[in-house]
Amino acid sequence: MAHISIIGTGNMGQAIAAVAGRGGHTVSLVGKDDTDARLGDVVVLAVPYPSLSDLVATRGADLAGRIVVDITNPLDFQTFDSLTVAADGSAAAELAAALPQSRVLKAFNTNFAGTLATGKVGDLTTTVLIAGDDADAKSTLADIVAAGGLKAIDAGSLRRARELEAIGFLQITLAANEKISWTGGFGVIA
Amino acid sequence: MAHISIIGTGNMGQAIAAVAGRGGHTVSLVGKDDTDARLGDVVVLAVPYPSLSDLVATRGADLAGRIVVDITNPLDFQTFDSLTVAADGSAAAELAAALPQSRVLKAFNTNFAGTLATGKVGDLTTTVLIAGDDADAKSTLADIVAAGGLKAIDAGSLRRARELEAIGFLQITLAANEKISWTGGFGVIA
Repeated sequence: MAHISIIGTGNMGQAIAAVAGRGGHTVSLVGKDDTDARLGDVVVLAVPYPSLSDLVATRGADLAGRIVVDITNPLDFQTFDSLTVAADGSAAAELAAALPQSRVLKAFNTNFAGTLATGKVGDLTTTVLIAGDDADAKSTLADIVAAGGLKAIDAGSLRRARELEAIGFLQITLAANEKISWTGGFGVIA
Repeated sequence: MAHISIIGTGNMGQAIAAVAGRGGHTVSLVGKDDTDARLGDVVVLAVPYPSLSDLVATRGADLAGRIVVDITNPLDFQTFDSLTVAADGSAAAELAAALPQSRVLKAFNTNFAGTLATGKVGDLTTTVLIAGDDADAKSTLADIVAAGGLKAIDAGSLRRARELEAIGFLQITLAANEKISWTGGFGVIA
């Protein structure tokens, strides 16, 4: 069993902690300012994009050697009309550059919290798309997701985080414009 | 009833023609080199991205005043690792710039041909995501799609074509890597 730490106790943090817990793993849900908590082998940064740089500054050394999961959608929430990262890059790529000793994955950003909590998007089992450059790290996270009753798909290298963030962005704009609900969105049919 | 022309007689062109025909519209399926065919009010360019510039050169004047639908996924099919348009742009934005007198929409690029033909992704009704800057044009296309038995969602301005092309790109890489089938992919749950 892995020890999984979730930094960030909002809706997404709570939902991801519940998924990890269903698989019988040790889960710690850690406030983002609680820098004393001992971190697990897998650390999910369940914080908004603007908080990532603070986490890197305060906990970067402690994240070395661990699997670090970025779930952020780096939107301009003023305009809902663009991302706030380089057009050819991603929040995950920035994080990987800032944490060269961690194995950074992108995951969960295409899942609304409600669909993680229930395990369903409509009648479909919720699918977590995972991008990253370390196959073992991706496999570890995929096993945690599957043990929690969801589906996981390896979406490719960390370069694919650009596309995952585009999907997260579009999905949020669709919900904000009431084209879909916050319990709906993109389901994946294999 | 609208007159809809589909330029391009491949799998996507045939599938889109069938959708349009189910709604009782007049549909003409036109070979991409048939420059004599009279075009309809709505023209779907069902050709690969590299063919768009030729179409603009040979038929640009004839496309003026019409609703022009770009369905392309401008992938680097050698590497499957990037798009071939500017990272902050899209094929649709390029087309709109080249056809300033047409009302350019992005649509169908997130739908595999098989899901247009059957109207289903798994058990879900296939949803066509439409981006564009002209509300009337989007509404016209959405009505055609709905009359053909599919769902349509207004995905926002033509700027959102960047995200639609990212979704199309990722979906193709997932199918090419056998993570999903060519009859599966992203379904939209409202």
